[in-house]
Amino acid sequence: MKELEKLFDRIVQRVNINLRELEFDVNPLVNKLIPTRQMTRFYAFYGLTPHHPLNFVFRHSNLSGSYFLGKVRVTNSLLYKSDIRGDELKQKGDLFQYQDFNIPVDQDEEICIDDSFLIKTLVHNFSHDPETLETFFIRDTVSTHYANIHGSPSDGCFYGPFSTVDLTTIRDCLVGAYAYVQAGEISHLNVDPGTVWVRLPDEFNFMYRHPSDQLTNYIYFTPGNVPQGVFMDFVEDRKAAFEQVFNIVNFKAPVTVPTSASVDRFAVIKPKTSIGDNVLVAQRAFLQNSTLGKGANAQENCYIINSVLEGNDVTAHGAKIIEADMGKTVFVGFNSFLRGRPNARLKIGQECVVMPHTIIDISKPLVIPPGHLVWGLIKNADDLQANSMSLKDFSKIESRMSKGRMLFEGSGKSFVTGFQERIHHILEANGAFYNNNNNRGHAQRNQNISFNTIQPYPKGGDKEGLYPTIIIQP
Amino acid sequence: MKELEKLFDRIVQRVNINLRELEFDVNPLVNKLIPTRQMTRFYAFYGLTPHHPLNFVFRHSNLSGSYFLGKVRVTNSLLYKSDIRGDELKQKGDLFQYQDFNIPVDQDEEICIDDSFLIKTLVHNFSHDPETLETFFIRDTVSTHYANIHGSPSDGCFYGPFSTVDLTTIRDCLVGAYAYVQAGEISHLNVDPGTVWVRLPDEFNFMYRHPSDQLTNYIYFTPGNVPQGVFMDFVEDRKAAFEQVFNIVNFKAPVTVPTSASVDRFAVIKPKTSIGDNVLVAQRAFLQNSTLGKGANAQENCYIINSVLEGNDVTAHGAKIIEADMGKTVFVGFNSFLRGRPNARLKIGQECVVMPHTIIDISKPLVIPPGHLVWGLIKNADDLQANSMSLKDFSKIESRMSKGRMLFEGSGKSFVTGFQERIHHILEANGAFYNNNNNRGHAQRNQNISFNTIQPYPKGGDKEGLYPTIIIQP
Repeated sequence: MKELEKLFDRIVQRVNINLRELEFDVNPLVNKLIPTRQMTRFYAFYGLTPHHPLNFVFRHSNLSGSYFLGKVRVTNSLLYKSDIRGDELKQKGDLFQYQDFNIPVDQDEEICIDDSFLIKTLVHNFSHDPETLETFFIRDTVSTHYANIHGSPSDGCFYGPFSTVDLTTIRDCLVGAYAYVQAGEISHLNVDPGTVWVRLPDEFNFMYRHPSDQLTNYIYFTPGNVPQGVFMDFVEDRKAAFEQVFNIVNFKAPVTVPTSASVDRFAVIKPKTSIGDNVLVAQRAFLQNSTLGKGANAQENCYIINSVLEGNDVTAHGAKIIEADMGKTVFVGFNSFLRGRPNARLKIGQECVVMPHTIIDISKPLVIPPGHLVWGLIKNADDLQANSMSLKDFSKIESRMSKGRMLFEGSGKSFVTGFQERIHHILEANGAFYNNNNNRGHAQRNQNISFNTIQPYPKGGDKEGLYPTIIIQP
Repeated sequence: MKELEKLFDRIVQRVNINLRELEFDVNPLVNKLIPTRQMTRFYAFYGLTPHHPLNFVFRHSNLSGSYFLGKVRVTNSLLYKSDIRGDELKQKGDLFQYQDFNIPVDQDEEICIDDSFLIKTLVHNFSHDPETLETFFIRDTVSTHYANIHGSPSDGCFYGPFSTVDLTTIRDCLVGAYAYVQAGEISHLNVDPGTVWVRLPDEFNFMYRHPSDQLTNYIYFTPGNVPQGVFMDFVEDRKAAFEQVFNIVNFKAPVTVPTSASVDRFAVIKPKTSIGDNVLVAQRAFLQNSTLGKGANAQENCYIINSVLEGNDVTAHGAKIIEADMGKTVFVGFNSFLRGRPNARLKIGQECVVMPHTIIDISKPLVIPPGHLVWGLIKNADDLQANSMSLKDFSKIESRMSKGRMLFEGSGKSFVTGFQERIHHILEANGAFYNNNNNRGHAQRNQNISFNTIQPYPKGGDKEGLYPTIIIQP
């Protein structure tokens, strides 16, 4: 284990150097988070498809329980049960549009993870930084449970549990638990827990912050302990179901999957679940007694329980939907937690946009009318009033608006249009619009995938727990 | 599949060119042997240990269901359910003794397989050719079901089912079904089916040939068909038991294994089996209702059923022992088939040597006294008389002796001593003499091993069934 421990120390030191201005020490937060012996217990795995450029290079790292797809290079890093999903990387010959520039992509983009420690973290999408088109880098970074690093090159950052950085180039920043940042480019910031911040420079700025006294009920992270709260309890309670799925080599989903849909073999599917055409279910998704209508999806770490998704619903990475009825084309953002009760179901009307990191946790039935934007923490109808607005009305904002704990500046129209375009793009990428061999997306491409498992050096030497150098190329 | 089919054609052509003098065409024999779609169905796997130099390089090959350990390079080849076990390769700094030469080994030896098609073949041991110390090559070679390539660099050969080449450098040869060759160096030979040939130039020459009319009952191989006969039926009948073992990731042997012993997780262990100290059970071994005493072993493709091995018994690759009681230190050579019956048990006395490729298939009880050499085909006491001799008497042969279908020339003493030394070496390498941390061998070293699985490109392109380039290094 000696080399593994040295590697941990080295990463912590590098991150601390990057965060020195913020006077932040990651060591007490992470040094007992994953016992070293846990890091040797789980195999890592990578997918092989005919559709994605293939290039894996793993050196001097531990990859325990992590999943890789596409073009990924990992060096001097610890990746614990993380998903590094390179199926949306830019490809050689693409043109990347940035403001007035049309920049040709020189070679297939690669996710490069160096000197970082990622815990149960999702890495997806592609670098939106025009300065580093061919490299989606993650360097000198520590991220904790269920963080999402989505299209966000990161250098010298610490990500709290259930935090998300989205389409942002980020340097030397602290992102608190359950904070969501989509801000283009930021550096040397300390983003408070529960912040939801969406900014397009010169266009708009959306800012919300969860009330910290209530947020700690859901997620709470202090030095020396694993993250605690409702979010953690919820996933821990369902952990055992994944163990069986990971322990069988040729696992068949216990559900009928249409030929146009794909259900990852590392997802948990419990009865009675029904999968419609063009549905995409990613690895580590959990479905129970639910209906996914045509074109709906469930990404990594999503839980959909006792719910109906009528169709073309986007359930972004880490979102949970429990006891809910979702109309068509409802978008539920990253790590949102939507929980109805058996006698108090949540009903969300069609084309609603549930902002990333929204918590809806009700004990009486609640109906969200169609076409609404919803954010923040909602426990009842009053909260809904304070934390929602019709998209139509929101589009009318031209300069500034505050409502409850939310502050918006800039063009509401630009904000709403941006969201709608992005949702359309996600559905397209997922293959929700697939028809007669047109508009293929992940749902169709991921059907033909073969999985390979890799393990670290076993007991009996300094290298215990380290993976050997592994290079996989076409 | 296109590339896979091209690869097959290319290999067949190369082997045929090598065998042109023998006017042999491998194509009709192998072209329907493994349907191409079978080659995409099974994962390959490799072991990682702290004890063996690690270096895997796989290029432009199919490795379906095959296992790799140690330092192995595979290029432009098809390996179907084969075992490439590089745990006895020479290591850098070793001295290789050949006649009066002491040749230093320059770098860790590597098994190099190029342009070859191996079916359910075992590759083990190390190159005994002083000309190619650092490379155990297998080139332009086709081998069929349950062939053993043991310490035998091979170039331009065809190996029939259940054939064995042992400690022999072999070029442009045909080795018939169930033929065993241990001859130092041979080329341009056509070895008939059922031949058992052990030669040490200038020392001795042992030659036996199974009667072909009886051998075809056990193994029969004609163009257009898979191998047929008792040997094939026997293993096919037990195939299903392996499927479960291969479909579980963390498989635990359902038997108590002493800390000094190792039972490979890809072996089948059925009740009620007992495993003694220092026992070694390799992958693809099958044990049922048997007792393996201290220091006994079962190698790849061994089946031990309703039998007792008292201790330090060597069961070489592919040997089967059914309804038998084996005294201490009995050696059973490659692919031997020893079958008693419930009411007609086979009893083999201590320190007997059962020659490779011996068939004992009885319907009345049979006792082989201690210290005997046994060979050939034995169905009753008369056959035993004709096909055995005490080692003591055999040692007395000084020039020439024939008995039944066996012809021996040279020094019986040299032959017997050679065998005994080799058995001692095998037990040593297997860890049978392990005691208080001394004399470690495979049984102790193989305890800490982690397995990794690899798969080919899935459906959806010309590369279907081919494995990507895979490089695994320390």
